[in-house]
Amino acid sequence: MQRPSGRLPNELRPITITRHYTKHAEGSVLVEFGDTKVLCNASVVPGVPPFLRGQGQGWLTAEYGMLPRSTGSRMGREAARGKQGGRTVEIQRLIGRSLRAAVDLKQLGENTIHIDCDVIQADGGTRTASITGAWVALADAIAHLEANQLVNGKPMLRAIASVSVGIYQGEPVLDLDYPEDSNADTDMNVVIADDGGMIEVQGTAEAEPFTEEQFSAMLKLAKDGIAELNRLQKAALER
Amino acid sequence: MQRPSGRLPNELRPITITRHYTKHAEGSVLVEFGDTKVLCNASVVPGVPPFLRGQGQGWLTAEYGMLPRSTGSRMGREAARGKQGGRTVEIQRLIGRSLRAAVDLKQLGENTIHIDCDVIQADGGTRTASITGAWVALADAIAHLEANQLVNGKPMLRAIASVSVGIYQGEPVLDLDYPEDSNADTDMNVVIADDGGMIEVQGTAEAEPFTEEQFSAMLKLAKDGIAELNRLQKAALER
Amino acid sequence: MQRPSGRLPNELRPITITRHYTKHAEGSVLVEFGDTKVLCNASVVPGVPPFLRGQGQGWLTAEYGMLPRSTGSRMGREAARGKQGGRTVEIQRLIGRSLRAAVDLKQLGENTIHIDCDVIQADGGTRTASITGAWVALADAIAHLEANQLVNGKPMLRAIASVSVGIYQGEPVLDLDYPEDSNADTDMNVVIADDGGMIEVQGTAEAEPFTEEQFSAMLKLAKDGIAELNRLQKAALER
Amino acid sequence: MQRPSGRLPNELRPITITRHYTKHAEGSVLVEFGDTKVLCNASVVPGVPPFLRGQGQGWLTAEYGMLPRSTGSRMGREAARGKQGGRTVEIQRLIGRSLRAAVDLKQLGENTIHIDCDVIQADGGTRTASITGAWVALADAIAHLEANQLVNGKPMLRAIASVSVGIYQGEPVLDLDYPEDSNADTDMNVVIADDGGMIEVQGTAEAEPFTEEQFSAMLKLAKDGIAELNRLQKAALER
Amino acid sequence: MQRPSGRLPNELRPITITRHYTKHAEGSVLVEFGDTKVLCNASVVPGVPPFLRGQGQGWLTAEYGMLPRSTGSRMGREAARGKQGGRTVEIQRLIGRSLRAAVDLKQLGENTIHIDCDVIQADGGTRTASITGAWVALADAIAHLEANQLVNGKPMLRAIASVSVGIYQGEPVLDLDYPEDSNADTDMNVVIADDGGMIEVQGTAEAEPFTEEQFSAMLKLAKDGIAELNRLQKAALER
Amino acid sequence: MQRPSGRLPNELRPITITRHYTKHAEGSVLVEFGDTKVLCNASVVPGVPPFLRGQGQGWLTAEYGMLPRSTGSRMGREAARGKQGGRTVEIQRLIGRSLRAAVDLKQLGENTIHIDCDVIQADGGTRTASITGAWVALADAIAHLEANQLVNGKPMLRAIASVSVGIYQGEPVLDLDYPEDSNADTDMNVVIADDGGMIEVQGTAEAEPFTEEQFSAMLKLAKDGIAELNRLQKAALER
Repeated sequence: MQRPSGRLPNELRPITITRHYTKHAEGSVLVEFGDTKVLCNASVVPGVPPFLRGQGQGWLTAEYGMLPRSTGSRMGREAARGKQGGRTVEIQRLIGRSLRAAVDLKQLGENTIHIDCDVIQADGGTRTASITGAWVALADAIAHLEANQLVNGKPMLRAIASVSVGIYQGEPVLDLDYPEDSNADTDMNVVIADDGGMIEVQGTAEAEPFTEEQFSAMLKLAKDGIAELNRLQKAALER
Repeated sequence: MQRPSGRLPNELRPITITRHYTKHAEGSVLVEFGDTKVLCNASVVPGVPPFLRGQGQGWLTAEYGMLPRSTGSRMGREAARGKQGGRTVEIQRLIGRSLRAAVDLKQLGENTIHIDCDVIQADGGTRTASITGAWVALADAIAHLEANQLVNGKPMLRAIASVSVGIYQGEPVLDLDYPEDSNADTDMNVVIADDGGMIEVQGTAEAEPFTEEQFSAMLKLAKDGIAELNRLQKAALER
Repeated sequence: MQRPSGRLPNELRPITITRHYTKHAEGSVLVEFGDTKVLCNASVVPGVPPFLRGQGQGWLTAEYGMLPRSTGSRMGREAARGKQGGRTVEIQRLIGRSLRAAVDLKQLGENTIHIDCDVIQADGGTRTASITGAWVALADAIAHLEANQLVNGKPMLRAIASVSVGIYQGEPVLDLDYPEDSNADTDMNVVIADDGGMIEVQGTAEAEPFTEEQFSAMLKLAKDGIAELNRLQKAALER
Repeated sequence: MQRPSGRLPNELRPITITRHYTKHAEGSVLVEFGDTKVLCNASVVPGVPPFLRGQGQGWLTAEYGMLPRSTGSRMGREAARGKQGGRTVEIQRLIGRSLRAAVDLKQLGENTIHIDCDVIQADGGTRTASITGAWVALADAIAHLEANQLVNGKPMLRAIASVSVGIYQGEPVLDLDYPEDSNADTDMNVVIADDGGMIEVQGTAEAEPFTEEQFSAMLKLAKDGIAELNRLQKAALER
Repeated sequence: MQRPSGRLPNELRPITITRHYTKHAEGSVLVEFGDTKVLCNASVVPGVPPFLRGQGQGWLTAEYGMLPRSTGSRMGREAARGKQGGRTVEIQRLIGRSLRAAVDLKQLGENTIHIDCDVIQADGGTRTASITGAWVALADAIAHLEANQLVNGKPMLRAIASVSVGIYQGEPVLDLDYPEDSNADTDMNVVIADDGGMIEVQGTAEAEPFTEEQFSAMLKLAKDGIAELNRLQKAALER
Repeated sequence: MQRPSGRLPNELRPITITRHYTKHAEGSVLVEFGDTKVLCNASVVPGVPPFLRGQGQGWLTAEYGMLPRSTGSRMGREAARGKQGGRTVEIQRLIGRSLRAAVDLKQLGENTIHIDCDVIQADGGTRTASITGAWVALADAIAHLEANQLVNGKPMLRAIASVSVGIYQGEPVLDLDYPEDSNADTDMNVVIADDGGMIEVQGTAEAEPFTEEQFSAMLKLAKDGIAELNRLQKAALER
């Protein structure tokens, strides 16, 4: 089996994490997994949604979008069609759920953190790149809250990162790019914390069902890949 | 650990599968997992969506809804609000993807099967009950196509069923009802075929991350539960 | 003239009224007029819409929907299309107006009763079955309010029921089923109280205008049919 | 009983029917029932909706709207809110159904007549004024089709007109204006053809149920009022 | 160069300004520029939008619509399509911005003036006619506020009016009608105050770019035309 | 008068034009006017909208959006709200109209060019930066069409660029940034071709009306600024 990119089965694409990418957001990160480029902004907004008011805790929510020509052929703009598509909704719920697992909402005070992941260029794995980059933006936003004494405690519970794995031509591979993703038998997105705790596992058989052995092999790849991503996240935060 | 229902950790709720529940649909099943009741209709409609026209193959798509008072407190009606919520979209995409894995679309001819899963009464596990019941409705709809010689081959590839598993008070349990689901640490929905092939695995940490050991224990419970559901599906089809 | 069902011109279909059909709603009734089956849930929600706030009175509102495959050929799901159709809007306004005529809103306190009529299976006359069944669900919901001392007075003013009448092949007939309804010259929906007071009369010429004599004959059929429905409603409440 | 306007119980408001009110529409009528002023345009558009294509027959459809400040206090603009209200939908369905009863769609050829009733100033009875005025606009549009030999036969079957009646302070009255309408016990809208054939009867108890005697008295008033409206329609067409 | 209407290059169409056109609005003007007829209603509503609350100042906002058959061929009704078109949005923003330049919002108190411009019949120049007519309606609405002592100061700052100019067959012309507008090389809408102060200039090259000389010539025509419109506005207010 | 940025009244911000910014679009430009950064993608899509089909000519259309945190405080995402705001609609119409003036649609063949301008970071002047950058993306897209022999003639008619000018503290200034824009008395957006032909002039009095002298001074600044922008566009295309 030869991957289209020539990578080894357990090899990530080149990863770049650029902080302070835009000037307005409290956390702003451009994350690149090879040719996949996502701008992840974390915005701090005072107040919480109605269902949480008066409970002294915070909230985190995420939205995801693709620029119309982030893809090989132009997609219709969701704002113009008046509706977010089902895939968009599914992805932004995953991002929000994953990042909420990284923070202690009770320590946030009555603040809401809005995560916006906007895909500038897509080449497979936009949702996992989004989660990985957004966690760094979130860390900067929480540091901003702490530096301005807008929170008392330590809202950040753990680092999380995410990567996709799959079965490509019968073999488990890490971090699928678009040519692999569009031909994979199975596609799995995994979110894991830096202490190895599992946050999300979403495996989908695209053509053929997968076996438990394949599942275990994919999970192993994901764990190693995410450990590397955790290192890159921390290095970025130390710069 | 005592489950609120008094069930054993590996015990399903009482399962009922009633075929021919309504008279118009080609497949019509009321599925009950304890107090969770979902009407699953499979409708055969000639023709396929534009992106498949002229390719000689069929399509399967699914929609999901909850009646406004299927739940403990009344939810707004999505038709009146003019929008399906994010959870609805996520669930109906899962149902459609899972059932497409059960059929050979090439053998369907240019027909579309619409699966409608409407929750009459909710008590946890509506998405897994939907998939389990909808597969039986799908089997009836395909039998209808075959009996009327509207397809040449054998579109049904395999039986699939689905169940939820989770970590409740630190222990893995099968088929969570609402009191368990709303207090679980981890919630996982699994779709498996009758030959053991895995179709979908969606595990989510609600409060604390889960470990690989917990993951394996949950998966084991799910496999056994689904094997029992497969037997019940087949028994229903033989009646 | 022979009715497709073989019924006499003044003969109702078999009527079934099943209370406590689902477990969450304060009133929950499955009503069947022959093959027409509608689930009518009455939900008590504290509070009233903004235009009534602070006046010490209550409100009642109704919504209606058809499951996509309640009909012979599948209809698009209104929640997915993002809009309720004109027929739906017209029917739910009729249901709400009719049931408001049955209650003394001033005696309800600042509570809102939401009536949800969802058609499980359609065979003509869904709006009249909805009103007839929803009144029983409403009676249970009001009994719940009284039993829990959430109201002071007696909000229920009168029993109401509804039936359709029409001119089929030149002759007035009671309680049209779908084969009759789709070929009728005139279709009339009538809502009458148990003391004979008229609440709603909606007669529509489908093909030919109707005469006053025909109108009177239809009204006579409706009155007798509704008297029988009132008896069945009360019998159901006594069970 | 004294009517707020000083009219007799069986007295219409001053009625004005102005043809050719705007220059573009094939039929354009400003109809005034006292201070209620509605612009009724009938537009001929070649072609029919998809469900009628290829059957050689035509179609008629109606839309209704109120200018935001046609009423005593300003209403939100439906185009800005992105949705037609329930009352609007109910009224435009009534207008369309009533006018379709006036024409033989088979004689129209594959043409669609769009009726637009836009309320310039409201003072009660806008739906009945709309039907009455729109029939005259329709007559002009059909005359246009005939003059240009776009139809073979005679599409117009009959003249129709409409008026409201009600029970005001216990007494039946004809053609309610806003002060009466907002205090009436019963409100009934009637559409009748010039040969006395009944097209639509929609009676609604607002506060108290009404009796058959009241119903008959209201119907009698409506018949006489409509006969007068028919005379005014024909006089307008002869000018 | 011969204008289709036979007018001189610097000649306005016949202008009519009819006040008190409808009875409910605080200001109600039918403005006619030749065959272009727009009903401009100004409604006073207590209160301001959330972003201005508690600041003691008022607001003015405008909406614009065309009746579906105000034009040569029928346009779809925006309320039925569920969306205002881009041209509508652009025009109503221009109307609102222009009229806000005529008033001192600080002198309005916490009141909102809603301007509704609804095109009854279109023949070119509907936006400039709207602004010209709406200013007169606004003057009446402000007089109403002053007469009822709902404002302290003098909210009206200046009179404004608007006209279109363009390059038609190479020559600058004033107040284009539809036959000119649809063939013009350049179209420019100008809003000027009665002291000559410029409020809005919107010039658009339709086919060929325009030169500064053409621009100056058009602006000169606009200034003279608007001076005449100011005279007509004031004459209308004195009647 | 001191500009907040310390620039001279006739001084542009630092301008950067980066071609081939993303890999999928036929033309992809990141344009920066100081801290304002807009990604302008030009996509070639075969075919034209229905109203142009069969006429052998092409079309160009534009859409505009701001990323939610491109601004100082987070704005709601238009895709999530289900509607593009009025400002967005106004701007994308201006961009499309301006760029259509740059091309000969008849020479494009039946192709549509979609321009997408997405604001990554906003600091005033996003619409003029969009037009200036999008023209370069358009030039690349047309070169792509020519290189692939998808067009016969030379669709590009002229270079265009755009800049804002305004009256800030009583003085005309070029290329307003956000601190100036939010305090300007007058704001004017100008689009001019490289031969000096004027394409669009949109001047708006924000607080006080402006005089013809001010208008002329602003126009002079805009012409000089645009000449400089034209040079930068051409330099970028030669790199």
